[in-house]
Amino acid sequence: MSSTWGTNIKLSIFGGSHTEAIGVVLDNLPANEKIDLDAVRMQMARRAPGKDKTATTRAEADEPQILSGLLNGITTGAPLAAIIQNTNTRPKDYSLLKTHPRPGHADYTASIRYDGANDIRGGGHFSGRLTACLVFAGAVCRQILERRGVTVGAHALQIGAAKDSAFDPVHVSADVLNALNTRFFAVNEAVAEQAMRDEIENARLDADSIGGVIECAAVGMPAGIGSPMFGGVENILASILYGIPAVKGVEFGAGFGVSALRGSENNDAFYYGEDGHVYTETNHAGGILGGITTGMPIVFRVAVKPTPSIGKIQNTVDLLEKKNDTLTVVGRHDPCIVPRAIPVVEAAAAIALLDMML
Amino acid sequence: MSSTWGTNIKLSIFGGSHTEAIGVVLDNLPANEKIDLDAVRMQMARRAPGKDKTATTRAEADEPQILSGLLNGITTGAPLAAIIQNTNTRPKDYSLLKTHPRPGHADYTASIRYDGANDIRGGGHFSGRLTACLVFAGAVCRQILERRGVTVGAHALQIGAAKDSAFDPVHVSADVLNALNTRFFAVNEAVAEQAMRDEIENARLDADSIGGVIECAAVGMPAGIGSPMFGGVENILASILYGIPAVKGVEFGAGFGVSALRGSENNDAFYYGEDGHVYTETNHAGGILGGITTGMPIVFRVAVKPTPSIGKIQNTVDLLEKKNDTLTVVGRHDPCIVPRAIPVVEAAAAIALLDMML
Amino acid sequence: MSSTWGTNIKLSIFGGSHTEAIGVVLDNLPANEKIDLDAVRMQMARRAPGKDKTATTRAEADEPQILSGLLNGITTGAPLAAIIQNTNTRPKDYSLLKTHPRPGHADYTASIRYDGANDIRGGGHFSGRLTACLVFAGAVCRQILERRGVTVGAHALQIGAAKDSAFDPVHVSADVLNALNTRFFAVNEAVAEQAMRDEIENARLDADSIGGVIECAAVGMPAGIGSPMFGGVENILASILYGIPAVKGVEFGAGFGVSALRGSENNDAFYYGEDGHVYTETNHAGGILGGITTGMPIVFRVAVKPTPSIGKIQNTVDLLEKKNDTLTVVGRHDPCIVPRAIPVVEAAAAIALLDMML
Amino acid sequence: MSSTWGTNIKLSIFGGSHTEAIGVVLDNLPANEKIDLDAVRMQMARRAPGKDKTATTRAEADEPQILSGLLNGITTGAPLAAIIQNTNTRPKDYSLLKTHPRPGHADYTASIRYDGANDIRGGGHFSGRLTACLVFAGAVCRQILERRGVTVGAHALQIGAAKDSAFDPVHVSADVLNALNTRFFAVNEAVAEQAMRDEIENARLDADSIGGVIECAAVGMPAGIGSPMFGGVENILASILYGIPAVKGVEFGAGFGVSALRGSENNDAFYYGEDGHVYTETNHAGGILGGITTGMPIVFRVAVKPTPSIGKIQNTVDLLEKKNDTLTVVGRHDPCIVPRAIPVVEAAAAIALLDMML
Repeated sequence: MSSTWGTNIKLSIFGGSHTEAIGVVLDNLPANEKIDLDAVRMQMARRAPGKDKTATTRAEADEPQILSGLLNGITTGAPLAAIIQNTNTRPKDYSLLKTHPRPGHADYTASIRYDGANDIRGGGHFSGRLTACLVFAGAVCRQILERRGVTVGAHALQIGAAKDSAFDPVHVSADVLNALNTRFFAVNEAVAEQAMRDEIENARLDADSIGGVIECAAVGMPAGIGSPMFGGVENILASILYGIPAVKGVEFGAGFGVSALRGSENNDAFYYGEDGHVYTETNHAGGILGGITTGMPIVFRVAVKPTPSIGKIQNTVDLLEKKNDTLTVVGRHDPCIVPRAIPVVEAAAAIALLDMML
Repeated sequence: MSSTWGTNIKLSIFGGSHTEAIGVVLDNLPANEKIDLDAVRMQMARRAPGKDKTATTRAEADEPQILSGLLNGITTGAPLAAIIQNTNTRPKDYSLLKTHPRPGHADYTASIRYDGANDIRGGGHFSGRLTACLVFAGAVCRQILERRGVTVGAHALQIGAAKDSAFDPVHVSADVLNALNTRFFAVNEAVAEQAMRDEIENARLDADSIGGVIECAAVGMPAGIGSPMFGGVENILASILYGIPAVKGVEFGAGFGVSALRGSENNDAFYYGEDGHVYTETNHAGGILGGITTGMPIVFRVAVKPTPSIGKIQNTVDLLEKKNDTLTVVGRHDPCIVPRAIPVVEAAAAIALLDMML
Repeated sequence: MSSTWGTNIKLSIFGGSHTEAIGVVLDNLPANEKIDLDAVRMQMARRAPGKDKTATTRAEADEPQILSGLLNGITTGAPLAAIIQNTNTRPKDYSLLKTHPRPGHADYTASIRYDGANDIRGGGHFSGRLTACLVFAGAVCRQILERRGVTVGAHALQIGAAKDSAFDPVHVSADVLNALNTRFFAVNEAVAEQAMRDEIENARLDADSIGGVIECAAVGMPAGIGSPMFGGVENILASILYGIPAVKGVEFGAGFGVSALRGSENNDAFYYGEDGHVYTETNHAGGILGGITTGMPIVFRVAVKPTPSIGKIQNTVDLLEKKNDTLTVVGRHDPCIVPRAIPVVEAAAAIALLDMML
Repeated sequence: MSSTWGTNIKLSIFGGSHTEAIGVVLDNLPANEKIDLDAVRMQMARRAPGKDKTATTRAEADEPQILSGLLNGITTGAPLAAIIQNTNTRPKDYSLLKTHPRPGHADYTASIRYDGANDIRGGGHFSGRLTACLVFAGAVCRQILERRGVTVGAHALQIGAAKDSAFDPVHVSADVLNALNTRFFAVNEAVAEQAMRDEIENARLDADSIGGVIECAAVGMPAGIGSPMFGGVENILASILYGIPAVKGVEFGAGFGVSALRGSENNDAFYYGEDGHVYTETNHAGGILGGITTGMPIVFRVAVKPTPSIGKIQNTVDLLEKKNDTLTVVGRHDPCIVPRAIPVVEAAAAIALLDMML
């Protein structure tokens, strides 16, 4: 199913870049949970466009309007639904794309999939704008998670050639994550942010875009969450993370780095901590063994491709005339989606982790 | 759900390393499809243990016994069920593991998850042996896929420091894949196999193990398969691939490499081929845009961690005495799971691609 | 999952009687389908309150606002979402019910289920008002179904002691159903309507309510739709029909009447019609054998309980004081929900049948 | 999905009347639950053929062979799989049915659905024999349920014109149910059994069959289980009960009887019992309000059609010659399936109730 996700929670997302509104329904949330809407708005502001010159200049208030599921700020147990009006739309920017699909974008595949009936305006349902719904849902879920002792945070690990220092997968803490998960352009080291901004600005000046990697961690997950085979934490997280447009890779713990490791290096030795709990000395597993949490931090990374909408002239086809042609994409686009995608990755993780804990 | 997977096809896998049998049910397969059981056995032989000194010496016939769903070699439309007897079991090898969980293995997390009732013998339901069921199911699905023009194949891209050449993501063909997908230890270049075998042998001589990367491609998938957001080809493939024990990363097309790419480099320009179909000049997308197939080859890679069961002494805990201890794993184990995992990755891909095509 | 339904289509319903809005999302509808919104409004008008003295006097415009999924009246393939504002709410009517649950209503069970956090206003998410969302979704689905040759219609078969003639399960036709499925208070025989209105009026004058039975048929379903065991047409229809508040029974074809039948009476003999198609002489099966359509009309009946909200004094408990008490329900309620439930049953059937055809 | 069911538990059933074996997988059962296999066998014996002259003379040992999921009689948390060999098959009885579908049976619809590839032998996957798998699964689930205080039992309420007394929906107790749920041909009143046996014998002597109604109750379910709309106890129970071949109706509490009731009659008044718990004075709701359990007994009835396989000559078609023809069904068949279906209904209820409690 395309836009519905979840096992214990059921998430449904609707809308397109230029429809009247976008929205989200969260079914089967626990009842009697207090939701701080200011904290939700803060998360949404981290993702919202128009805040920073690394991002599109399309300005949207992105104020979520709660339609149901909250009463006096408390979840009622009924589906929590919210919509966000689309106000700042410029439909005329997209008129050419119906016949001239943008390379790297879903214009062509959507046209085939939906028999040409897809809404091309702003990318329609494939627009990154839909991630505002994910952030809303994640902002709700993370509050419920935090009440259960789980904290999620992420940072830009790499943009182009610029790199941030990685999380310490053993010692990353709620404090570290809380310092990140309220920021725009979260990084562990300030110097990395400047280098990354330089990469983005250089791409922007070239009418181009640039990709990156986001690293995310969750601490406080108890051991024993998840299931073998297809019910593993990796499966569940990947199944939602790949729902974020532009994600082309997901890896856990040592990830692709395991290919160069010996078992004796990769295995995380168990030991009893002073508190009588079992820990691992290292955490190459990213907190997951056999699909099930070990109690150590969950650590994963997602690869984010460069925004396909760039100002350079590109080769494409004319689907109407059935001939090759060129295209110069106009409109407002992010030269790098990574900074705004950080809260989206956190949100997706929060939704998935809560789904598994319930 | 742990051991059940699928949307249009429903796959259910059961059994453990040392239970009476392992087995698999495939519900909702198309009816009236001829299944060549010799071809199924050939795929299973590629994964079977005891064939090669890179693998465990546990010898299993791995003969699938069809219980239902086939009549005179034709699918009836009713659930196709098969079991594989476990014959060559040595339960005494595993007696210590109930209290001394193996680092890197699911012993500890399973014990927490299942309240100590998990079957520890041979890793129980977490054993790599369960992948024989995946291969059976995949071998059935790939025959149906091939009849629809889709071919799947994979190779060892990397083991330790040894690397094979990658697929050409634009030109990889059914011929290339067919030459790989019947082989044990499939590689594109023979020289790579030798270097990889050396890596494995060195690890084995050190009582250690080594990880790797498997690259898989599928050609012939028509454009327009898959859905946006959570119904994307990446989501669906990842959700089954992470069900293969030891997989710690999944990436599509340029994968994590996108982080260093500009949009102008990563975007795949469209053009009309001489046959009047739309192609892309490059294929950084791995054949998937917006979660939907482009018609170009689907290309992805999975990271396979080094087998956690190694002969070296390791630090672990004694869960009974609640103290730190050491463990030397005995039993028969693969120094590298990559060669045997190649057909497993192909099988998982075949199941997922057929599920999406139906 | 409570408010999400479907296999090929995914239906998500949200809202409560007194929330800002109620709404519905239909994911995975076929693309490129023209939807006539006037026809949708007409179906919603059949269910809307305030139209008839058999129904509550709460007047609601029930104008659906399309948020996404339609472009120029054509489905885009993206989720179709619509909301209906709640305008005519009287929250003060319900203040007592938090402590004094109405007999026959979900006040008590919701309070337990949701730890007292449930929205009691107007029954919250349990309100019959949510069926407006079902009717919207069904009105969309039936247009797509009609284009595939399937017509759905229903009538009040019984209200109290008053009975309408049943459908002829062999000969019921699209014409018969089309004459019913645009009417308020649809019956086969006009005389039945008057008798039923008398039953309702008598109940209303007694500050009471009355139950009934709705019979529904679908013609034009091709043979071969549905699956054995849990994927049968009966399973799928029942799983959505019991989502209509007040439904306490669902039966297909001869239904509970089979208990008094011999096999020789109940079996429907096959024969070839003049058009070369296979038909059955009778249709005790209600068009379904082994969970799969026969091609004959699908016929089923649902039992609708009397509205629990009645004006009579009733025994209940005071959950706060933990003592027995009495309650007189005030507010605006239907003395009989059957007439307004007819289009709801049709809608649920249309959603389910389309889901199975896709 | 045809033969897979469940939300928290995942049930997968495979096999046909004449395949090598039939079998069942139960995924996600709670771990560490002791399962008494003798109690399981006792339940299976209640359904097994050849025990009574009301039933088919096909004798099957129906001994379940556990393949995985139990270790020393304790659930491991891994999928519990069992198979039952098909030993006493007579394939030649069914040779004609491929072209001459039996009226009232799935032969015709399966042929359309599966493009003629369906296994016609003994009804294939549509055979009532598959209910042995349901009984196995239910026998496991009911042991887990009983440990949580829930008891399920059923009886033949009606066969032809013969009727048993109904359960007292308020006072039916675990003792009453336990006295029934180990018996073959369970009834509340011994006199009813004799009348029912007479009905069956008369049908058998006429080479005919007879239908009936089974009433089932579950006591001990706590209040607050289930969800609104599509997650209601009625929806969930109906979705599995219609998976039992021959079921054509399902009703809860007063069921279709609500059509003649006033709200003042049908509403169940709440009161505080001496133990401080909330009860209802009557139980027309069958223990379910708004889809959620009230804590009162759950009571429902299923209509069971007369076995379609009868010895009389019947009209049917010749699908090969495309002409009308007649058929006399040979083979061994039950003149009434009701007695053997009683434990099947209990089993389905047990599976569904456990699924909802987890």
